[in-house]
Amino acid sequence: MKKCLITGVNGFVGRHLLQYFDMLETDITEILGVDYSPETAAFTHQRQPFSYRFEQVDLTEPEPFTSLANDFDPDWLIHLAAESSVAASWRDPDRCMTNNWNMTYNTVRFLKLRPIQYQPKCRMLAVGSSEVYGYRENWEEPLEESQQRRPYNPYAASRVHQEDWIQLNVKWHKLNIVSTRSFNHTGPGQSDRFVVPSFIRQLLEAKKNGQKTVHLKTGDVRLIRDFSDVRDVVRAYHLLLEHGQSGEVYNVCRGEGISLLNIIEILAEMLKLDVTIEIDETLRRRGEPPIVIGNPEKIFRATGWKSQVPLEQTLKEMIQKQLKGTSKNPLVII
Amino acid sequence: MKKCLITGVNGFVGRHLLQYFDMLETDITEILGVDYSPETAAFTHQRQPFSYRFEQVDLTEPEPFTSLANDFDPDWLIHLAAESSVAASWRDPDRCMTNNWNMTYNTVRFLKLRPIQYQPKCRMLAVGSSEVYGYRENWEEPLEESQQRRPYNPYAASRVHQEDWIQLNVKWHKLNIVSTRSFNHTGPGQSDRFVVPSFIRQLLEAKKNGQKTVHLKTGDVRLIRDFSDVRDVVRAYHLLLEHGQSGEVYNVCRGEGISLLNIIEILAEMLKLDVTIEIDETLRRRGEPPIVIGNPEKIFRATGWKSQVPLEQTLKEMIQKQLKGTSKNPLVII
Repeated sequence: MKKCLITGVNGFVGRHLLQYFDMLETDITEILGVDYSPETAAFTHQRQPFSYRFEQVDLTEPEPFTSLANDFDPDWLIHLAAESSVAASWRDPDRCMTNNWNMTYNTVRFLKLRPIQYQPKCRMLAVGSSEVYGYRENWEEPLEESQQRRPYNPYAASRVHQEDWIQLNVKWHKLNIVSTRSFNHTGPGQSDRFVVPSFIRQLLEAKKNGQKTVHLKTGDVRLIRDFSDVRDVVRAYHLLLEHGQSGEVYNVCRGEGISLLNIIEILAEMLKLDVTIEIDETLRRRGEPPIVIGNPEKIFRATGWKSQVPLEQTLKEMIQKQLKGTSKNPLVII
Repeated sequence: MKKCLITGVNGFVGRHLLQYFDMLETDITEILGVDYSPETAAFTHQRQPFSYRFEQVDLTEPEPFTSLANDFDPDWLIHLAAESSVAASWRDPDRCMTNNWNMTYNTVRFLKLRPIQYQPKCRMLAVGSSEVYGYRENWEEPLEESQQRRPYNPYAASRVHQEDWIQLNVKWHKLNIVSTRSFNHTGPGQSDRFVVPSFIRQLLEAKKNGQKTVHLKTGDVRLIRDFSDVRDVVRAYHLLLEHGQSGEVYNVCRGEGISLLNIIEILAEMLKLDVTIEIDETLRRRGEPPIVIGNPEKIFRATGWKSQVPLEQTLKEMIQKQLKGTSKNPLVII
């Protein structure tokens, strides 16, 4: 018998989290989803008998979020809401910092101000980012949670701030919060503002036009990233809520890197296209680390979680999904 | 020929910085001091021929600070202004975070938005705090700049955020900013809300009442801290502006610890008093590290600076200063 509050529920991960809870037998009986934006498509659960309700709420303000959350009285608070675009954080760093700070502050404040008898009850999962690692000397070494954080973009700095705030509140107010450093994830339904869906969109357009060879304009495709399937990621979040240790932060990653070029090659092979690459320097992001690979040992030891879905399968399903839908976004942001 | 802008000039360190510049032959010709609070006593320089002007400015807003600073066109920006009380940061963390963020953001923004031809010209000294180190496993080890930061109070978290913001702006916008992690400092003129002046006040009151033995109510006086004289500290700031490396952060510390109890013993000896101690748990601050000692090697290598004034001399001058003035603050905040 669990009540679960999800912030940022309209996002890519939020939608997959709902679907995941609908696939799995859990003891969840009620879910309240909140988001800054209105619900684009109502979520209708099909299998599991929990009740679902959506509320449009601006988390950067304490109210009405606090009242709503107090009325709902959740056992789990899954905090996905964030200004999470690195590119946008360069365009308006103050907005990214202030909004992310306020959202973290208000969610933690809700836990802190609860009547003391409820406090140990509500457990929060605070989703963070591998961006906190930032700059290093040795790019090859898989990133471990104990490493120095050297955030090198405004978004990353806001995530360090979130981690610190949670850490000290867990310590001094005995709050029950588990944090993640989530690495790259993708999957069906991700906006084609993101790199993998944007590759797929461009290749599918070429295919539709009957082309056999495609000329792709990209950012620096030599970048190596650690990709997991979004469905593995939401499973990790669930397992961390079940078994993670409060005050700890866990990498959510596969532990293996793949270059963006390699992803393009796999896609080209699947779609039977010849692809040539032109690197467009304007698509290059300031301070992109050449290699980001995480070490997933800590989460494995705590929860038994491993990234399972092979990237090839993820890509195949993303192609199928895009073939069904249509997409209009002309931007490629890596 | 240098123009120097000082934020937070009305504070303890700001006043000493002005006095320091008045004692020393430098190439400073103009100083503009700004502070949130009105000037309590006008600064009149006695020796050096620079001009001094004060403006009351709220640094948490971009204006009028930015216009004022642009008009003044400083070569050096010494950023002392901050919400710097740990105790106050516990009472109102959001205020501490938001104000410190805004002040850092607005000063860095001034450097960043300057016409490009002025940019390399203005060099900033961003004063930070040893509080960023926070929690450790091994308390004995002197703190080095390369160590993990684990802020354990809201003030400390705001200082980590400041460091990160400066670091990434130096990196990507080629700004010229040197940062400090300043350890404890004290000296004549420090408010008796702080630990050492509060000891002195209490002992002097007893002395005035003709007591031979004094019963002191204190926080945990077993705490060991690394104290420097404020006049050494402002000298360090000057030397860092001259010789520090942009993007680097420097401990400003003596490299030696002394317990608060030991300081009380020295004061009792000087004032010929017998002192007994009662530890008042309500004066105890959450998350006080038992030992905070810094390693000053990095600043020494960069600038040749060392903490010089012996603590005994500092204490003697503080007693003399308090004997001249009167103090009303009843609080002991450690």
